[in-house]
Amino acid sequence: MENIREYLTDLCAKAKAAQAKLALASDEMRNNALEAIAEAIVERADCIIEANRRDIDEAEKNGISRAMCDRLMLNEERIEKLAASVRKLKAIDDPLNKSESWTRPNGLVIERVSVPLGNVGVIYEARPNVTVDVAAICIKSGNAAILRGGKEAYNTNLALEDVLRAALEDAGLDKELVSLVHDTSREGSNTLMRLNGYIDVLIPRGGKGLISAVVENASVPVIETGAGNCHIYVDKDADFDKALNILVNAKVSRPSVCNAAEKLIVHASVAEKFLPLAAQALGKHNVELRGDEHACKIISTTPAGEDDLTREYNDYIMSIYVVDGIKEAIEHINAYSTGHSEAIITEDASAAEEFLNKINSAAVYHNASTRFTDGEEFGFGAEIGISTQKLHARGPFALEALTSIKYKIHGNGHIR
Amino acid sequence: MENIREYLTDLCAKAKAAQAKLALASDEMRNNALEAIAEAIVERADCIIEANRRDIDEAEKNGISRAMCDRLMLNEERIEKLAASVRKLKAIDDPLNKSESWTRPNGLVIERVSVPLGNVGVIYEARPNVTVDVAAICIKSGNAAILRGGKEAYNTNLALEDVLRAALEDAGLDKELVSLVHDTSREGSNTLMRLNGYIDVLIPRGGKGLISAVVENASVPVIETGAGNCHIYVDKDADFDKALNILVNAKVSRPSVCNAAEKLIVHASVAEKFLPLAAQALGKHNVELRGDEHACKIISTTPAGEDDLTREYNDYIMSIYVVDGIKEAIEHINAYSTGHSEAIITEDASAAEEFLNKINSAAVYHNASTRFTDGEEFGFGAEIGISTQKLHARGPFALEALTSIKYKIHGNGHIR
Repeated sequence: MENIREYLTDLCAKAKAAQAKLALASDEMRNNALEAIAEAIVERADCIIEANRRDIDEAEKNGISRAMCDRLMLNEERIEKLAASVRKLKAIDDPLNKSESWTRPNGLVIERVSVPLGNVGVIYEARPNVTVDVAAICIKSGNAAILRGGKEAYNTNLALEDVLRAALEDAGLDKELVSLVHDTSREGSNTLMRLNGYIDVLIPRGGKGLISAVVENASVPVIETGAGNCHIYVDKDADFDKALNILVNAKVSRPSVCNAAEKLIVHASVAEKFLPLAAQALGKHNVELRGDEHACKIISTTPAGEDDLTREYNDYIMSIYVVDGIKEAIEHINAYSTGHSEAIITEDASAAEEFLNKINSAAVYHNASTRFTDGEEFGFGAEIGISTQKLHARGPFALEALTSIKYKIHGNGHIR
Repeated sequence: MENIREYLTDLCAKAKAAQAKLALASDEMRNNALEAIAEAIVERADCIIEANRRDIDEAEKNGISRAMCDRLMLNEERIEKLAASVRKLKAIDDPLNKSESWTRPNGLVIERVSVPLGNVGVIYEARPNVTVDVAAICIKSGNAAILRGGKEAYNTNLALEDVLRAALEDAGLDKELVSLVHDTSREGSNTLMRLNGYIDVLIPRGGKGLISAVVENASVPVIETGAGNCHIYVDKDADFDKALNILVNAKVSRPSVCNAAEKLIVHASVAEKFLPLAAQALGKHNVELRGDEHACKIISTTPAGEDDLTREYNDYIMSIYVVDGIKEAIEHINAYSTGHSEAIITEDASAAEEFLNKINSAAVYHNASTRFTDGEEFGFGAEIGISTQKLHARGPFALEALTSIKYKIHGNGHIR
């Protein structure tokens, strides 16, 4: 694209104008648009799947991994599921126009009301379902969606953009509310990251490389999501049955997700008994273990390297560290964790309290699997992601995180 | 400084270790430290004033403006006031450990609790009172303060750091909770802006140049504060008495602050009657007026230039624009405002509602002065600043904005 900055500011300005109108639309109107989107993607599934087929062919030609092709692939079943998740949003409480007001001693009435953020940018990779998810979440919360998907899904995303925009118009809304960035160059995404005044929040959805590129380069406000180097700490007073169940669940129930456990920390006084049991339990699921020096003396594993401390494997791999006590466990986790989710397994209530108080992560568990860090599991409904930063949103975040507040003040000639 | 990055990471790591302990300290302990700080700055006022004298001498030698010297100057009265504002924080509700909890159908108990952000960085200019204010606000909210003050106040800040750190130790806390960056180079502040993992939030306090440098360059999370290009819109149905009172109050009661009005927008149908009255009222206070073409036809003023549209004068200057109606007024304001505070003066309730709904600023007033955008005036108590961004904090923000949340989850062997 010749002038990428011009292209993007134009696209964002159109989105902003459309968003200003959407901000004043009723919840019913926004829900009608969601219904129109759900219907349209199912009705036009054929042309979406055809476009997707072209992306898959290209990906296969380029020798892209099977896992990546699977993330990229849309079929009728997946489109039906997408439509269902869009419809689910309709039932959720309107996040907008929540207000409280109070009167000051001088008679000024101050009203605090929830309003949309404005233009929500999302940079993501090969998963085209993100295109629909984000568009729907943005419409529900009165925001415009600026979608910068990966080049692998370009044809699919183009088809989806068409369908989404037509559905918006059918529902009486402006098509500019959902815009796909028709440029998948790195320059394009770098420009997007620095469009202050045009992008109100930018959310990266993808792997560690993408997330840190956005955090490093963006000058627009960012919500950092997803990277999860999660730890399970087995204390000296752990119930081994609970510990083994939780360990296996946290590691193998879905290794590719961010709330899966990556590291096992074991108290030295139980390491000799516990580690062989852990190795056996994880071995049944073909988990590759890597141990620190102490762990390697107890069970036969590959030695863990320096980079294992911080790696998020997203795979059937787990590294193991033996510590002298809870203090060392907490220090280890606070030093190497991504601040996502950690768990202590213990029957000692005071050790649990210490762990829950001192661990500096979004979600800290006592005798439960880290896999519960999830909007639905917490009772929040549809989540946008898991924030690992402390500002604005932390942990599973939902529609509310796509709103800001505004003060409306009513006077009668008041001066200060 | 030879290796500024090493120096800063070391300073921040020490602060973080101290902050981890402060996060667990009781409100009483934190309040005791505030009392110790208030006492210490008054007791050691002499040496603070002596250090300040050296900064003032240097500033005068360098021909720095009187306004700047005034911002820089500390005397006994100002130090007493500072101590009083530190003591005032003690009475404010503890922002930490506010919690709510709920039980999920599977029996998991999820507790959501307010926790400190961690290391709070503040980059500011010549005002040494910021050093004490920020330190006290951070201690109250369980955070460590990383203070990067301007070189003009270096000696004063060094003296204050000494006093603050000694007071912390007297109160049984770690002196590393308050750290002045002993480097006032641009390289130093640029490095601080990119210390992800060491700075949890960065707040610029100062002029537009400082704020935009931080927003442009920071990779750590930022709260953008303070810039206020505030507008007063006089509608066709305005009560002229209210309009004139509010206009004069908003412009001249304190022109140097961010909630002062900078622009007057007038509906064309009342411009001929209202503008001469406005010019007379503002003229009494020696306000320099600059008008658009239409305004210049009605009253004799300097023509406003292109850059007047966006300028925050912070001075006895106001520019005037005549619009064809409320729609144009709203478009003008949303295009050129910094998103701080705007007001409509009208007796037409539906025009007021339209303005309050469509203006995209933190605080929007009906028949009241923009000067009310202030933590105390809103009833929030001590404010940290006025946020003009939409993420995390918007409008006047107080201690709560220096906290995040954390989920503590209690299970009994729960797996997903």
